[in-house]
Amino acid sequence: MGGDHAPHEIVKGALLAVSEYPVEVILVGQEEVVRKELAVAESLRNIEVVDAREVVEMEDTALAPLRRKRNSSVRVCANLVSEGRADAFVSAGNTGATWTSARAVMGMIEGVSRPALAAILPNANDHTLLLDVGANVDAKPNHLREFAVMGHFYAQMVFGIEAPRVGLLSIGEEEGKGNELTKETFRVLKETGLNFVGNAEGRDIYNGNVDVVVCDGFIGNVVLKASEALGEMVSGLLKGEMTRSLPRKVGALLAKGAFDGLKKRMDYSEYGGAPLLGVKGGCIVCHGRSNAKAIKNAIRIARGFAMNRIDEKIQTKITDLHAREHDSSVLARQ
Amino acid sequence: MGGDHAPHEIVKGALLAVSEYPVEVILVGQEEVVRKELAVAESLRNIEVVDAREVVEMEDTALAPLRRKRNSSVRVCANLVSEGRADAFVSAGNTGATWTSARAVMGMIEGVSRPALAAILPNANDHTLLLDVGANVDAKPNHLREFAVMGHFYAQMVFGIEAPRVGLLSIGEEEGKGNELTKETFRVLKETGLNFVGNAEGRDIYNGNVDVVVCDGFIGNVVLKASEALGEMVSGLLKGEMTRSLPRKVGALLAKGAFDGLKKRMDYSEYGGAPLLGVKGGCIVCHGRSNAKAIKNAIRIARGFAMNRIDEKIQTKITDLHAREHDSSVLARQ
Repeated sequence: MGGDHAPHEIVKGALLAVSEYPVEVILVGQEEVVRKELAVAESLRNIEVVDAREVVEMEDTALAPLRRKRNSSVRVCANLVSEGRADAFVSAGNTGATWTSARAVMGMIEGVSRPALAAILPNANDHTLLLDVGANVDAKPNHLREFAVMGHFYAQMVFGIEAPRVGLLSIGEEEGKGNELTKETFRVLKETGLNFVGNAEGRDIYNGNVDVVVCDGFIGNVVLKASEALGEMVSGLLKGEMTRSLPRKVGALLAKGAFDGLKKRMDYSEYGGAPLLGVKGGCIVCHGRSNAKAIKNAIRIARGFAMNRIDEKIQTKITDLHAREHDSSVLARQ
Repeated sequence: MGGDHAPHEIVKGALLAVSEYPVEVILVGQEEVVRKELAVAESLRNIEVVDAREVVEMEDTALAPLRRKRNSSVRVCANLVSEGRADAFVSAGNTGATWTSARAVMGMIEGVSRPALAAILPNANDHTLLLDVGANVDAKPNHLREFAVMGHFYAQMVFGIEAPRVGLLSIGEEEGKGNELTKETFRVLKETGLNFVGNAEGRDIYNGNVDVVVCDGFIGNVVLKASEALGEMVSGLLKGEMTRSLPRKVGALLAKGAFDGLKKRMDYSEYGGAPLLGVKGGCIVCHGRSNAKAIKNAIRIARGFAMNRIDEKIQTKITDLHAREHDSSVLARQ
């Protein structure tokens, strides 16, 4: 029921997903509304509907699904994962309400103190995973360490690489550069056994030098939104310039394939959504303006998340890091 | 002597500036090298050369001009301003060394605790001033307040508007949104008497909703570098797409004016450089890859800075804010 184009595009995306991937989808929302959308479907194989009477609106607070709207679709989704009836859930609705439900109802992975929202951005060669992009503000070094571990496993899955290069967002490349938070975090990340490549500058998000960029949710959110707006601005300005004269219009027509190619490269919907890492089970947060393709891809990501047991891998690694810390502090005390 | 294209482009830019604006330029550097570049000039009216034997390299630390290289061009520039022989100086060299020299030799404006580097970025309608973009990390609310005051006066001058809209970079628009720093700063900025329009999100840097965006130097630097890299990435990808087939190449040729228009719109060199606000006298920090046009424009900005007595305006406003604070704390004690 959430998102600018719900329920139409959401249902359409779910139908695309079940036709393309070996996945079962439970559509959660006001049943009669959802069924009406499903009427066009040729087959309802692998589609189920679960009724949820309430809808969390964009104006609602993040706590609505826990208090006033306990029967909202997003809360019911979290319930289904928590009860083991679903492996993961996908939402294009109120972001705060989505992650509050996931965190409170599904619970955190043991040893992880905060969830992180991980966004996939295009870079010059491929893609970069940036996290956290807004689930937390005022992070501490051990939170950033958790983000690094979670980003590592998620990047392994989505990018298909064994040892993703993990960078710490800072200013200046050298270890001593940055603010109080990054200086301390740098020291901590060196001890993780991950493929930590040191500080990443703002430019490294887009130049393809790193696979995972770790930062606190405040800065990640600002960078994400600034990047989105910059992209829209450039595209708007170019469109304006391209339609200013007849030769330019003809040129634009001849080069249409080039613009389409670029658009596809920059298209957020290819990756469908950003996972909320750190919660038990999968939770994929989609852009409010998600279309069917974005939803379909988000379902693919959710499936991969469950199949690859990302949350178990995260837990094992975090437990291991905690144990090693315990050992070294025991040693230090002896 | 500083910058990727020094001294050639620097000297060329200075010659352009004296021919276009009523300004006198003192070129500071190894005299024989500078004179050689000047040999092509038709006239040396309003051009002077001051010898400085040493050169701060990019590898030198920010403290080099204060310690080992006291006769470096950047240090001599700061001396000239400090002695009143120049109103402002322009440098495309080592950024850290530039602002260390300015700060230490020229001194801070009374009442200002930290300098801030202010960058002008294109937005959908016009331009946005973003500060600080890297002179400080770990700022406190009163530092951000100083940045807001300094940004206000600088934006008045460069944008020619009476009451620039000042926004505080945060996540979420409402007062309660953000991290510890922005929440406290929001409260402080409301009391400044500036045209404070509240929180600005990452997107507001580029959508034209605000004229001045205030943030700490860590995040400002990350956003600036990420934006630069994103712009380069898009331009690189588009170039690749445009040359992939003959029709596209023809299209690109027909639409060349459109790309040139966009390029001009995004061109950092139009504003030449970023002022280091908060020091006594002017200091304009240019991009390392500045060409003659960027240097010419930086000199124009330096001239405007001096003519508009920006530093005096900043000092008056800061003194006023401190006095009001003192009054209200006296009142509170009574």
